[in-house]
Amino acid sequence: MSKRILIAQGGGPTAVINQSLVGAVLEARRHGADCEVYGARHGVRGIVDEDLVDLTQETPTHLERVAASPAAALGSTRDKPDRAYCREIFKVLAAHGIGHFLYIGGNDSADTVRIVADEAAAEGYPLRALHIPKTIDNDLVGNDHTPGYPSAARFIVQAYAGADLDNAALPGVYVGVVMGRNAGFLTAAAALARRHADSGPHLVYLPERAFDVQRFLGDVRAVHGRLGRCVVAVSEGVHEADGEPIAARIAGHAERDAHGNVQLSGSGALADLLCEQIKSQLGIKRVRGDTFGYLQRSFVGCASDVDQREAREVGERAVQLALAPAAAGGAPVRGSLAIRRTGDYATDIVLQPLEDVAAKTRVMDDHFIAAAGNDVTPAFHAYLRPLLGRGLPDTQRLRAHPVAKVLAAGKAG
Amino acid sequence: MSKRILIAQGGGPTAVINQSLVGAVLEARRHGADCEVYGARHGVRGIVDEDLVDLTQETPTHLERVAASPAAALGSTRDKPDRAYCREIFKVLAAHGIGHFLYIGGNDSADTVRIVADEAAAEGYPLRALHIPKTIDNDLVGNDHTPGYPSAARFIVQAYAGADLDNAALPGVYVGVVMGRNAGFLTAAAALARRHADSGPHLVYLPERAFDVQRFLGDVRAVHGRLGRCVVAVSEGVHEADGEPIAARIAGHAERDAHGNVQLSGSGALADLLCEQIKSQLGIKRVRGDTFGYLQRSFVGCASDVDQREAREVGERAVQLALAPAAAGGAPVRGSLAIRRTGDYATDIVLQPLEDVAAKTRVMDDHFIAAAGNDVTPAFHAYLRPLLGRGLPDTQRLRAHPVAKVLAAGKAG
Repeated sequence: MSKRILIAQGGGPTAVINQSLVGAVLEARRHGADCEVYGARHGVRGIVDEDLVDLTQETPTHLERVAASPAAALGSTRDKPDRAYCREIFKVLAAHGIGHFLYIGGNDSADTVRIVADEAAAEGYPLRALHIPKTIDNDLVGNDHTPGYPSAARFIVQAYAGADLDNAALPGVYVGVVMGRNAGFLTAAAALARRHADSGPHLVYLPERAFDVQRFLGDVRAVHGRLGRCVVAVSEGVHEADGEPIAARIAGHAERDAHGNVQLSGSGALADLLCEQIKSQLGIKRVRGDTFGYLQRSFVGCASDVDQREAREVGERAVQLALAPAAAGGAPVRGSLAIRRTGDYATDIVLQPLEDVAAKTRVMDDHFIAAAGNDVTPAFHAYLRPLLGRGLPDTQRLRAHPVAKVLAAGKAG
Repeated sequence: MSKRILIAQGGGPTAVINQSLVGAVLEARRHGADCEVYGARHGVRGIVDEDLVDLTQETPTHLERVAASPAAALGSTRDKPDRAYCREIFKVLAAHGIGHFLYIGGNDSADTVRIVADEAAAEGYPLRALHIPKTIDNDLVGNDHTPGYPSAARFIVQAYAGADLDNAALPGVYVGVVMGRNAGFLTAAAALARRHADSGPHLVYLPERAFDVQRFLGDVRAVHGRLGRCVVAVSEGVHEADGEPIAARIAGHAERDAHGNVQLSGSGALADLLCEQIKSQLGIKRVRGDTFGYLQRSFVGCASDVDQREAREVGERAVQLALAPAAAGGAPVRGSLAIRRTGDYATDIVLQPLEDVAAKTRVMDDHFIAAAGNDVTPAFHAYLRPLLGRGLPDTQRLRAHPVAKVLAAGKAG
């Protein structure tokens, strides 16, 4: 059997995809000089286009620098292959003697691997096909968490730690809109920015719960009345009870990718709408909205070391599984790698059926969401804390020893 | 003369204001136990409200942690004092035996110091009044650069380094809107994110040059035609030839602070408008816009060590000047501290007249802006590079050794 491996990447970039890529390449190098790793540029599209690079020719030193860089060094795609597309893929794989296919991506990319593996079996093309998980949305079924999520969560924590101090300095209402189409994991991370009892974010809205604008306004009014300020984290995917995302409703039209996903990011409309409602309905003057947009997945210099290590590992493990001796029964090697939590904090990497992950969406468990629907639980804090990694920046405020009033001694403190 | 100092802060938070605050407090401690430093909460507003804290009671250890935190530990304000307001200030200063006033802020805060110092002279209140510079906008006259700018610039560099890799992975047009009402320094920083000849940002638009939407669209079309993608940095303050900011025109109404500044941040409208124009006029499908908003001034964990050190120093120097023996002629101690560049890289701190800074705006010199008006010059790179500090994250792409085509050998490469 040829030991030539093809690796590619689909879906949105993350801070640690390149760790998985480099983990796979360096692990393959350990299997001997006859084990080559090719990369396809821009996912399955690069296979069809025969746009391949020889990753075995990259020096290990340079690979380490690529590993530390965010985004996706091979480029990505949102193409979804059909039967004809797969036949083009197999022509190229056959021409280059490739028997192993590793695809780094989210649930849509897992679906791509499933389709390619099924078609390979139907066509009789001998292919070992493995899906390597990544997504900042953390929405892959069967995974404790997915590579990419911890680093994006860390960005959100660092962003909210600063936004809360900023809001305390110039009080008002601050609304941040965080990525996450169906799963609130990334938005929920904002809660870990809190240090004091009155720290923000004071309210956290997740797509797992129906969003009611009037209830939202009531929540903001209550916090603002109590603290004189309010910091809010809202998922871009929040939707009313009928299920349509509010961001999509505002946009009027919906841009969809080949997998049917509505485009929600890349517009500030949701934050602007919510801020306008707060100004007009609550009469609060200083209201500011930020849409975190692509910064949260691409910002350089904000990776979790735990995430980097785990992303590296799943890439290494994928190559080990791909090159393992054939099973006795001759069962095809196919599946999706997944991180399972085995201790506090410890993990293992398992292989699960592609069908369990492909095109499915994991959302936040109920026990991670506070009963009121506008916050997370201590269980979520315990879940996320070890993933954020070492060296989270410290933030402190003054202890603020008051000076006794002289002039206004008679007034209320 | 009383050695009691009052310190406060006005305007927008930055990553290093607290360094100046802590520099002042720790320097004052070195002048003896009778040298106390009070802080006013939320700027001049806190003086009028007699809302004071005794900073001398903060432990040095805790102060160091506060120094490393962004925002403004004393809180801020955008109040602009008039004569009646100043009289309230002097009542409180007199009641607490305060003879020194240090105010950390931008050009509006310098104006506040000027007003307070003038009124103190008119009223016969003995006051030494010094302005300590800070602003991420870098728009203070007479300063080589202002504390706060280097850290915000570093955020922009790290953001664009990542956004460019993200855009290379999933090609299209990316438009980032960066803070800067009148001065383009912060937007211009994006240019330092480039590593390769084809790296973004490919286009940089500054408020120092009139913005023409049609020329902008032509620039984007040209870059996209050449590279298949385009990354753009646009200042929130860009305006057409008539001078009205495009962001303000979109908003329809203008929220202004007490100093008359139009509120431009806190809305995604400008990015959304530009993206819509690119989609509709150029027919490019994948167009994404981000408004960097408050992240660029409040994000935790992205400070320049040069900026931290310099902000600390100006706070220290302000106290040294405030407590210096009176000049022979009895000239009042008043002025604005400024950083001057004395070498590559070396600086000195000078005192300039408040009138030279107050309510004035420095913009980018012509020799920092490329002739075409859509980029910066090498001189700007040389200016900003030393300010960004140590340890900027490395980003690398694959060297990408191509695999010779087998099937498509006849096609164009």
